[in-house]
This record gives sequence, structure tokens and C-alpha cells, in this order.
Amino acid sequence: MTVVLRTIAEARNWVGEQRRAGRTLGLVPTLGALHEGHASHFRRARATCDRVAISIFVNPLQFGAGEDYERYPRPFEADLRLAEKEGVDAVFAPDAKEMYPAASEIVVEPGRLGEVLCGASRPGHFRGVLTVVAKLLHILQPDRTFFGQKDAQQVVLIQRMVAELNFPVEIEVGPTIREPDGLALSSRNAYLSAAERAQASVLYRALRRAETLLASGERQASRLEQEMQAMIQAAPGAQLDYARVVDRRTLEPVTAVEGEALAAVAVRFGKTRLIDNLVLGLS
Amino acid sequence: MTVVLRTIAEARNWVGEQRRAGRTLGLVPTLGALHEGHASHFRRARATCDRVAISIFVNPLQFGAGEDYERYPRPFEADLRLAEKEGVDAVFAPDAKEMYPAASEIVVEPGRLGEVLCGASRPGHFRGVLTVVAKLLHILQPDRTFFGQKDAQQVVLIQRMVAELNFPVEIEVGPTIREPDGLALSSRNAYLSAAERAQASVLYRALRRAETLLASGERQASRLEQEMQAMIQAAPGAQLDYARVVDRRTLEPVTAVEGEALAAVAVRFGKTRLIDNLVLGLS
Repeated sequence: MTVVLRTIAEARNWVGEQRRAGRTLGLVPTLGALHEGHASHFRRARATCDRVAISIFVNPLQFGAGEDYERYPRPFEADLRLAEKEGVDAVFAPDAKEMYPAASEIVVEPGRLGEVLCGASRPGHFRGVLTVVAKLLHILQPDRTFFGQKDAQQVVLIQRMVAELNFPVEIEVGPTIREPDGLALSSRNAYLSAAERAQASVLYRALRRAETLLASGERQASRLEQEMQAMIQAAPGAQLDYARVVDRRTLEPVTAVEGEALAAVAVRFGKTRLIDNLVLGLS
Repeated sequence: MTVVLRTIAEARNWVGEQRRAGRTLGLVPTLGALHEGHASHFRRARATCDRVAISIFVNPLQFGAGEDYERYPRPFEADLRLAEKEGVDAVFAPDAKEMYPAASEIVVEPGRLGEVLCGASRPGHFRGVLTVVAKLLHILQPDRTFFGQKDAQQVVLIQRMVAELNFPVEIEVGPTIREPDGLALSSRNAYLSAAERAQASVLYRALRRAETLLASGERQASRLEQEMQAMIQAAPGAQLDYARVVDRRTLEPVTAVEGEALAAVAVRFGKTRLIDNLVLGLS
């Protein structure tokens, strides 16, 4: 039986019970519209924690003006059924007023790392992400929290926040779950028209091309980027946001790939913005 | 016996022991150079918590260029004796490298409230304060934490941070402890020459003058401010930074005092900057 916690006070009570009983707690923060990518985190959380909580909260602070905050899918009943099926113990699903009773004066500021890649196209996005994750970690006080590699820049920033601000939590990063054609699972895939969906695998195909080129000896980041950009620009309906090869930890541009690097792409199809990435490694 | 914790790992171990034993923990964050103002917090913490930890850390992030970070007093042995005498259980005293192994990318940003009053003269100061307090709360995970009303703006900002970011901690604010002539206790009083020390009570006298004027029927904030400013400017060697009457919670300027307001002053004597405040109330 999955318990639904609508208020911060209810969440604190439930967390207090788990703590007093000496149980470890895993938290999977989500925006809802749950899919197999989320479910894979729920299962990893169950495997390592006595209790699993997830949060379902479409966080207004991480959406910019003109983005999809209003139309972001909110299929709460279906989400709850999935959570129950996967053995989630508690769903924290507050409304925006519960989380932000007034305009937030105090925020967690990501600095330079929040301004590159997706941060360049979405000003303030990572400030919103870090601020809400800080709130969720304080409310639910998990021992471990789970994020997906699909949101690579978010993962780097949350790891930095937890390390630099000394949050008492472990972070576990799960692999990207993909459709058969390689498209990374995302709640935003539901926005795609049939024609857009048919082209959307170009993100993954471009990333794999970079990987193949690297394996064949091409280490120049700019060459890998050009190849990815060209492939994406050739896909009907695809508008390139970025296709970059960067340092996996610092997200800074690299000249040549040495050891590991992160290939990351962002592409718009109409109003829908998709992202994907692959860790490139020289073996 | 007071245990000294030099590293974050040592602190986490000690905190873990207290938690596992089911003990409540009080934390008094300090910059060291402890005086009776600090000791009053230690005693309030002992009265309400099973164990009391204090931190002694001169936080570089809250000092601006040209401020007194280098010469800030660090009488660690005397501090430790005072902590022992007051029954403090643990002193967390990391060095700057332990707290900031690399330049901090991720910070807690105070917003508008960090830019007024002391924030106007000390850009970045409250960012540094909030960031280090967030770190200390995450490392020591206290049930309650104790601050002094002497640092009124700091108190407002920490209360806001704890409320807005949902830190699982209670904040207790202790009254300002004063010398017989009214000068608020501060580690920085040690910087004053004998002549400066003789004049330094002007901060408290100005605040009391505002209080007396209010009691006699003067509710115009600008009149109260002018009186305080004139008194401070008349004191030999005193350089006025600000003397303001503001809303106690929002720190915004008020036109007329209704209910409660905060009278706050900052004054320089040579290189030494002193602050003080009084909550003005209409009864």
C-alpha cells in the first residue's frame, strides 16, 4: 500500500516514523508522468533501502517563461498505480502553494555550471532544480537519492551541491532507459507528433556516431561535434540547440577526448525540447 | 570533557553516535573569540538539548576583500576552556581547507534581503553566512540551532533560509548581551582603542534615544533615524554606516512605526565596524 503525502507536515511525520524505526530511506524525486526510466530508479531504491519515497512535483521554479510548465503532463492516478506496482512506500505530491507559500527569496545558486549547455537555453532552470532538490532533501531526509544519467548536467550539479554543501545523502545515478530505436525515455516524448517521433531517434544516433568516430581514432572534440550537428540538422523538423563534447565532471569544453568525455545534445521538435547524452570513453 | 572535531568525517561520526543513542542535539555556530554572548547560547542549548555542539570557524566566504578575515581573533585554547566550563560536548573546528576544498561553485543566495543594511556595506557577506550555515546544519544535523539577536539581519536571513528551504531544524534567538555602558558584546570590541571604546556605547545610546522618542509619541521613522544619525555623528571618531528603522521581518523601510519595528545601526571606529539593534515596540 502506497501512502500519499500531500503536505510537508504529513511528509515529516511519515519520515519521522521511518527514522524512529531505524529504517533507511531512499528518495526518487520526479516531475511525475512516470515511465520505465523512473521505475528503474524505484527498483534500485528498493534494492538498497528499507523504505522508498518518491516525490511527484512539477516545480514551477525550474520552468522558464514560455516553457511547458502549464501543459506538462500530470497523470496522477496512473503515476500512483505505477508507484504501487513498483512497491513504492510513499508518494510526496504537494501542490505549488505548499512548496512555495510565498515568492522564494532564498535560492541555491548553481554558479557557472548552471549557465552552460541546457542552462544557456534555460536561464534559471538549474537554480530551480537545485532549490527544489534542497527542499526535498530537507523534507524527506533520505539516506540515498536517485537520479538518471539522462539529465547529465542535472546530475553533475546535484552531485556538486551535495558535496559542496555537505548534504548527508548518497546519490546514485541510474542509466538512461531507451526505446528500441534509441530514443531516451522522457515524459516530454508524449508531446511529439508521429512525424516528430519518427525523427527523434536522431539524438541517440548522433551520439552513437560520435562514439563510433572516437573508436575509429578521431579525438578532436570539434570534429565529433560537427558530425553530430550535421546529422541533427539533416533530420526533418529537428532544430539543433547544442551538440557538444565536454568534460564529464566540469562540463567545460574539451579540445581532444582523453579518457572520458560527455557528448551531450539538445534538439527541438516544434515546441518540444529533447536532450540526451553519452559518456564517451577511450578504452 | 569536550571533544574537538577537526574534520567533517569526525563530526559525522560523533553526530551519528548521538543520533543512534536517540539524543537531541543543539548547535551554536560561532566564529570563535567566545564571550559571554556566546556562553549565554551554550547555556540555553544545554537547557533544551541532550547534547550541545558548537562550531568555531572563521568563515572566509563571509568576509569581503579588505575586511578583517586575517586579523579576526582566534584564541582557540581560551575558547576551548570556555566551552568546557560551559559543558559543551563537542567543538567542531575545521580549517578553511576542510570546509572549502575547492572554490565554492554552489552557494545559497540570500536575494534582496542580503543587499540591504549590512549587505549594502558588505557585498557577498550574507551569501557567505547562509552558505556556511547550510553546510554546518548538514554536517551536524542539529535539532535546534542558536543565534543572537545582536546580528538581527543574519537572524532574519537564517530564519528565512530555514523556512524557505525547509531545513529540519528549530532556530532559537537569544537576547543581546551588553557591557554595563550598553555596548553589545562582540569579538570585534577587542579591536577598539581605549578612546574608541569610550565612544562605542553611542550605538546603544542612539538606539535607546529612538526608543524614548517613540515612547514620547514620535512615530515617524525618518525622525527617529535622524536623531540616531545625529547622535552617532556627534561622537568623536565614529563614522556612521547606517542608522535605520525597518520592518522587523522584511527589513524593508517603514514610514511610521506601527506595532513593532527594528532600529538598527552600524558604525565604524577606525577600521572596526560595530553593529547593534533594538526591537522597538508600541505598547
